[in-house]
Amino acid sequence: MGEIENLIKERERLHALLDFGHKVSMKILNLDDLLKLIMAEARNILNADRCTVFIRDFDTNTLWSKIADGLGKREIRLPVGKGIVGVVAATGKILNIKDAYSDSRFDIETDRKTGYRTKTILSSPMKNKDGEILGVFQVLNKKDGTFNEEDEKILSLLSRQAADAIENAFLYEEQKKMFESFIETLSYALDRRDALTAGHSRRVTYFSVKVGEKLALSPKDLEILKYSSWMHDLGKIGVRENILAKPGKLTDEEFEKMKQHAEYTREILEKIYFKKEYKSIPLIASSHHENIDGTGYPGKLKATSIPFFSRIIAVCDVFDALTSKRHYRQPMPILGVLGILKNDTGKKFDPLCVEAFFKISLCDIVRGINLGKVENFVVYSQDEKILNENTLEDLFLILKSGDLTPGQNEIVSAFMKYYGK
Amino acid sequence: MGEIENLIKERERLHALLDFGHKVSMKILNLDDLLKLIMAEARNILNADRCTVFIRDFDTNTLWSKIADGLGKREIRLPVGKGIVGVVAATGKILNIKDAYSDSRFDIETDRKTGYRTKTILSSPMKNKDGEILGVFQVLNKKDGTFNEEDEKILSLLSRQAADAIENAFLYEEQKKMFESFIETLSYALDRRDALTAGHSRRVTYFSVKVGEKLALSPKDLEILKYSSWMHDLGKIGVRENILAKPGKLTDEEFEKMKQHAEYTREILEKIYFKKEYKSIPLIASSHHENIDGTGYPGKLKATSIPFFSRIIAVCDVFDALTSKRHYRQPMPILGVLGILKNDTGKKFDPLCVEAFFKISLCDIVRGINLGKVENFVVYSQDEKILNENTLEDLFLILKSGDLTPGQNEIVSAFMKYYGK
Repeated sequence: MGEIENLIKERERLHALLDFGHKVSMKILNLDDLLKLIMAEARNILNADRCTVFIRDFDTNTLWSKIADGLGKREIRLPVGKGIVGVVAATGKILNIKDAYSDSRFDIETDRKTGYRTKTILSSPMKNKDGEILGVFQVLNKKDGTFNEEDEKILSLLSRQAADAIENAFLYEEQKKMFESFIETLSYALDRRDALTAGHSRRVTYFSVKVGEKLALSPKDLEILKYSSWMHDLGKIGVRENILAKPGKLTDEEFEKMKQHAEYTREILEKIYFKKEYKSIPLIASSHHENIDGTGYPGKLKATSIPFFSRIIAVCDVFDALTSKRHYRQPMPILGVLGILKNDTGKKFDPLCVEAFFKISLCDIVRGINLGKVENFVVYSQDEKILNENTLEDLFLILKSGDLTPGQNEIVSAFMKYYGK
Repeated sequence: MGEIENLIKERERLHALLDFGHKVSMKILNLDDLLKLIMAEARNILNADRCTVFIRDFDTNTLWSKIADGLGKREIRLPVGKGIVGVVAATGKILNIKDAYSDSRFDIETDRKTGYRTKTILSSPMKNKDGEILGVFQVLNKKDGTFNEEDEKILSLLSRQAADAIENAFLYEEQKKMFESFIETLSYALDRRDALTAGHSRRVTYFSVKVGEKLALSPKDLEILKYSSWMHDLGKIGVRENILAKPGKLTDEEFEKMKQHAEYTREILEKIYFKKEYKSIPLIASSHHENIDGTGYPGKLKATSIPFFSRIIAVCDVFDALTSKRHYRQPMPILGVLGILKNDTGKKFDPLCVEAFFKISLCDIVRGINLGKVENFVVYSQDEKILNENTLEDLFLILKSGDLTPGQNEIVSAFMKYYGK
């Protein structure tokens, strides 16, 4: 090939790399998508058959295949220093293997398991800005011959871009994880000010997300719903314990003070900086006691003037309150609970939200009810199938009909094993 | 120039762009550094004299020069649609101006103010992944002639990379801002459970950071110190209000229960996910009642076995407690407070931390003392100079000596105006 052809080819590849850099830097929000994209580009630019991105686990100093072509759900995990990939991670140097089976460092085990025949390997370290090795980027079986020096250069550049993008995605994910973990932990700690509401926010969040899923909300919306549910009772910080944990029914005056928690939730959350897409959280979280007929608090809002996600939380909040022990009563019998939800549909509750709530499987319902109440709660495998196959609506119809067939009786008994603990 | 020379030159530029992409994607942690880097690279790759990065403010739909060569502290701000930059932001299309002064869209105002003579302009939109225009990337006065088509291509690629990096940096910064704002707001809300400790965590954090600055801690360490200070009393969630806000001195038994808040702080914080560099926060925050002579709680830790940052917080915590009203006493006279700190140095307190604390200027001290107590607190300008020029150590020496010169008297009077509100 002449010099011009070479230069033109190189230009194409450099442009491809630049495009790749653009694509990966867009993907900060989701590391899995990012890794899939990196692999597709690598196969494409290097004309290789398969590709694997190994991530380094610093705690155990091993490498593991987060996503790999042709591995299915199998995972390759090997210590730094062992195998081709391990050597690359240990030395920080690229390895270009022309014939895998004649290289003693090559671990044939994976090929045995997958039935794949590895021939050529190009394996490059992914380093972060401090030179730390974050993982290894590997391509297998070049379609036309063996990997050459030009391929090595390209894979080096590609690995560098991938490392940057992975590191940014990690930084972002960690920051987000810290935020979520802080909200979650704090709301649980606050619930525990009254022993009987311990775990309440956790259960309401669990149910709200289930309802959100039944309503096919987007991941972003599910996130907003989750955060709002965690924080819906945050305002209880402002309610005194002699009211919050009073061992008995509240007087009217006390109840008025208790009701202020909804406003306090809004006041506190409005002081927090939320980014654009989360700006609705203070209003959503603080409107969980509004009723669609306008009889709720704090705003006496009606119907669609109540944020939709608050209407979801409202149903879950009441369900958890009725199915849990209170200072003045035991958990209510389940038919009574469901009867109240049905009866208040169209008055307090949005029919759409109640309908979605009743679509939750009995298995998810008993899991949710026992969250934060029973440690290491499990549904026995013999009950799992029947509880998965029937919804809360099924249970309601059976219980209401009164006269149970043996099959119906089986459903009810399975459910009751896990109810009212 | 021949085809080969052109291709070689293009190759160089593409490599420069790839390097640039690497550098900017590393800079997620600090947007200001990132912008400076982008500008330096742009000048370099395009052989231009000056460069400005305009960021779009979506609330007002204006563009503003976050960083610009030769502008000093001046800021250019103009609506989308106006001026060269505004037109680029409005149309989303690159503009290549060969002679600025003969273009009616050019706003000569800035040149008038800075004395610069703009000749050629290349101005490119920065678009995010949704095609939204985040800002404009502009280079001025090519050193050899006018910007050509090749320069336009390069600036387009450069703008795309810059937009990616800016967007990632924004996403990261917003996520971090949310995290900080949540911690801050929650600790303030918790302090308010007892009216007399309202603002306590805020003041302790303010003083701790001042001490950290006197000790020349790194930005990363100041951040850890700040977070730990905000959260040091988080464990008070677990202390009942009849003890927490008891209108009088606590009995021994009550005091034992009160002391548990330090352990609770650790228990709660240990449930939160912290990224690697923040893993020390639970121990730092929960060790603020340890004394270096081993008489503190909860761990009875001694000297260097107490995290250094806890030793800083300990001094600030006691200072705020003594200078604030308590249920059983008024704020203590300042000489008494300083005497206690000095007296307990080497017993309860680390001498290094006390020394740094006494280096804080009186102006910062009165600002800190009044945080969360006096709304819209200000130090009058006639007092600012004298309070800025004297430290807490100066005040201590003056007050201790007893016999005051008129100059010393002025310092004490200025301070006392703002003390004990």
